[in-house]
Amino acid sequence: MFRPYDIILKTRRGKELTPAEIDYLIQGFVRGEVHDYQMSAWAMAVCFQGMSGPEVAALTASMVNSGEVVDLNGLPGMPVDKHSTGGVGDKTTLVLIPLVASCGLPVAKMSGRGLGHTGGTLDKLESIPGLRVEMDRSALLEQVDEIGLAVAGQTANLVPADKKLYALRDVTATVDSTPLIASSIMSKKIAGGARAIVLDVKVGRGAFMANLEDARELARTMVEIGQRAGRDTRAVLSSMDQPLGRAIGNSLEVREAISALKGQGPDDLRELCLTLGSIICHLGGIAGTVDEGIEMCRQNLDNGKALAKMAALIRAQGGNAAVCEDDSILPEAPVQYQLTVDRVGWVETIDALAVGTAAVGLGAGRVKKGDPIDHRTGVMLHAKVGDRLESGEPWATVHAATQDAAEEAAAALKEALALSDVRADKPQLILGTVSPEGEVEA
Amino acid sequence: MFRPYDIILKTRRGKELTPAEIDYLIQGFVRGEVHDYQMSAWAMAVCFQGMSGPEVAALTASMVNSGEVVDLNGLPGMPVDKHSTGGVGDKTTLVLIPLVASCGLPVAKMSGRGLGHTGGTLDKLESIPGLRVEMDRSALLEQVDEIGLAVAGQTANLVPADKKLYALRDVTATVDSTPLIASSIMSKKIAGGARAIVLDVKVGRGAFMANLEDARELARTMVEIGQRAGRDTRAVLSSMDQPLGRAIGNSLEVREAISALKGQGPDDLRELCLTLGSIICHLGGIAGTVDEGIEMCRQNLDNGKALAKMAALIRAQGGNAAVCEDDSILPEAPVQYQLTVDRVGWVETIDALAVGTAAVGLGAGRVKKGDPIDHRTGVMLHAKVGDRLESGEPWATVHAATQDAAEEAAAALKEALALSDVRADKPQLILGTVSPEGEVEA
Repeated sequence: MFRPYDIILKTRRGKELTPAEIDYLIQGFVRGEVHDYQMSAWAMAVCFQGMSGPEVAALTASMVNSGEVVDLNGLPGMPVDKHSTGGVGDKTTLVLIPLVASCGLPVAKMSGRGLGHTGGTLDKLESIPGLRVEMDRSALLEQVDEIGLAVAGQTANLVPADKKLYALRDVTATVDSTPLIASSIMSKKIAGGARAIVLDVKVGRGAFMANLEDARELARTMVEIGQRAGRDTRAVLSSMDQPLGRAIGNSLEVREAISALKGQGPDDLRELCLTLGSIICHLGGIAGTVDEGIEMCRQNLDNGKALAKMAALIRAQGGNAAVCEDDSILPEAPVQYQLTVDRVGWVETIDALAVGTAAVGLGAGRVKKGDPIDHRTGVMLHAKVGDRLESGEPWATVHAATQDAAEEAAAALKEALALSDVRADKPQLILGTVSPEGEVEA
Repeated sequence: MFRPYDIILKTRRGKELTPAEIDYLIQGFVRGEVHDYQMSAWAMAVCFQGMSGPEVAALTASMVNSGEVVDLNGLPGMPVDKHSTGGVGDKTTLVLIPLVASCGLPVAKMSGRGLGHTGGTLDKLESIPGLRVEMDRSALLEQVDEIGLAVAGQTANLVPADKKLYALRDVTATVDSTPLIASSIMSKKIAGGARAIVLDVKVGRGAFMANLEDARELARTMVEIGQRAGRDTRAVLSSMDQPLGRAIGNSLEVREAISALKGQGPDDLRELCLTLGSIICHLGGIAGTVDEGIEMCRQNLDNGKALAKMAALIRAQGGNAAVCEDDSILPEAPVQYQLTVDRVGWVETIDALAVGTAAVGLGAGRVKKGDPIDHRTGVMLHAKVGDRLESGEPWATVHAATQDAAEEAAAALKEALALSDVRADKPQLILGTVSPEGEVEA
């Protein structure tokens, strides 16, 4: 018979827990036998002592087993999934999912909503008039079977242990722990049924992980969890010092994603989608090598197949698919306010956190769960790091519901841009990839 | 406005809390605004990060302020108090309190009950037929005013924050933290109203602190708390590898204490009482130096004044004071079972923890709070470390309620004694004293 006290003490002393001890802790917590105050003390001990590879794998497995597990094995082709640790202007999923589906891999994507300065795929999709993201599990699977992809809110009672544990960590300053973050993310991916998983771990000012070393450790931990759970897993480390692409805000990002699906759009967004897409195609067994995967993805962005898959997705979920040809169908903010520079220079930084926070202020994001959002608002960047600006040239446009909101955002954004008198380099986007064999620097 | 989250995070990051933040945390916890799961996470963070001197002083002050504070300033002379961190056979309070009262210092002692392998003064006193330890605060103060001393259970709503926090630490593996232990002990001493406090910090097998370094840190922390609270505080580090004295168990210990009050009894018990008593007399202003204090205490042990004060205490609290002259009044166990050695040798160790645990098994102590105890039972040692024993000579006698219990204890005690073929030294009892100026090794 296990006692919560002994398990907490073992972790506090830096001793490795057995899988049975971890499972008792997690299932006991869900059943209410392990109290909140014991679980929070244990989580704090984990923040200091970390967890071994076998421990974090056992934690993840136990969390997966706390609820339903989606079975995607009946789908034609290997079911794949992608996860981003969250960034500013990160509309990658909107491009990547139709892209890999157009290549022939089934995607039953369960997505989330935005919180704080990072956006959420569901909110972005809901910018499209008529589109619904709520469907039950059988409807989701039917749609994937029919058109190869679906994107919805969580459709099942997945990983209740994670919900309960996360809520507790959120009020006890124990969110920020690599093994707890890694097991939280991976438990949901594994319960979601994908056989191959690609992770986009963001690094920098606008990311949860501010430095490369922490991001690397998170990536390694998640890849190890995936492999131990029999899911082929890779992670890409990508920079989030400046926002991804040029659009920040829901309908603005949908417009940019559609542009990327037409083979256009910003270079960094396209690069990231090709990097992640090629790995997925390789893991999914439809590309012999990652290089073949890149070629496959490039073709489908440029020949319209990925865009056609996006149109099918929108149509199947009740949205107006004409948006793929005419983006004026997307809602637009009434006030547009240009930010200009008062001197010549090269863009040295565009602080992703500051831009994301300004977008939240405009109503594009949420301060707390359940807050309503304004799909129209956000920020469009006219320059990226490394670009040269002349005096008086606009560097961004604020899209706002009111003039007051626009001016407030403009004031907040003043410090977000830094100009240099000397030429600034275009920064590297892809910082490395992590596979079970180790890390490859980009 | 403080938020528990921010305070937990600050401690987790090793940043110093302000007194206002600590006070919010403690009072908020008592009011129920700071939740159990937040407090336990904070306590775990303290286990890893420790607390600074000002932090632990603020924590103690806030805990003191969570309840009533006893005012002893109306008493004639400086009110003094003593605390032991707990050991096996530790009947020091029974000797020390009448001793310093006989020297002229008022003592309103609030004592506790035994738990686990360490005994409690209240349980020991209740071995004396008729003696009551429950009295309200005015009765306690009246008795001190009249005869100079009283010993009772807690008479007021002292330090409710400590009660609540301790209960939480007890189930979250956060008991074992120097600042939390120190503030818990000192908050009760300070709220109890004493102006001068002497602490007996036990070190060794039978003590809470197994090694000298931990004990030293606890002593230093408590002395600093006391000084910051304006209470003149000293700590003595004393060895608890073997039991103190020869008697372990309630009525057996009362008998030994009375013997010590007659100027007899075991050397180690007398040495400890003189050491602690002399410091109290010096802090209390009735001895110019500690050496004068030793002389004062030695006289009152040898001239019967300390014993007379003990008789007054027993009488005032309803007990049969004839026990001071005739200890056969104390209850005696029906079964006495001798443990002998089967070879010649010098006693190298007598494991205090093993003896204490065996005494609990005999009913002399409690496994959990509220368990009844048997005042008659326990263990008498006939030898101490350094003594020579001949083959067949008894080294201990088990005092038990039944033959079965005696045999069980005898079996458990087999491993408690270690004999050496070469002469073993008498161990040092007093390992050092800690004052605000630093530590003096003994």
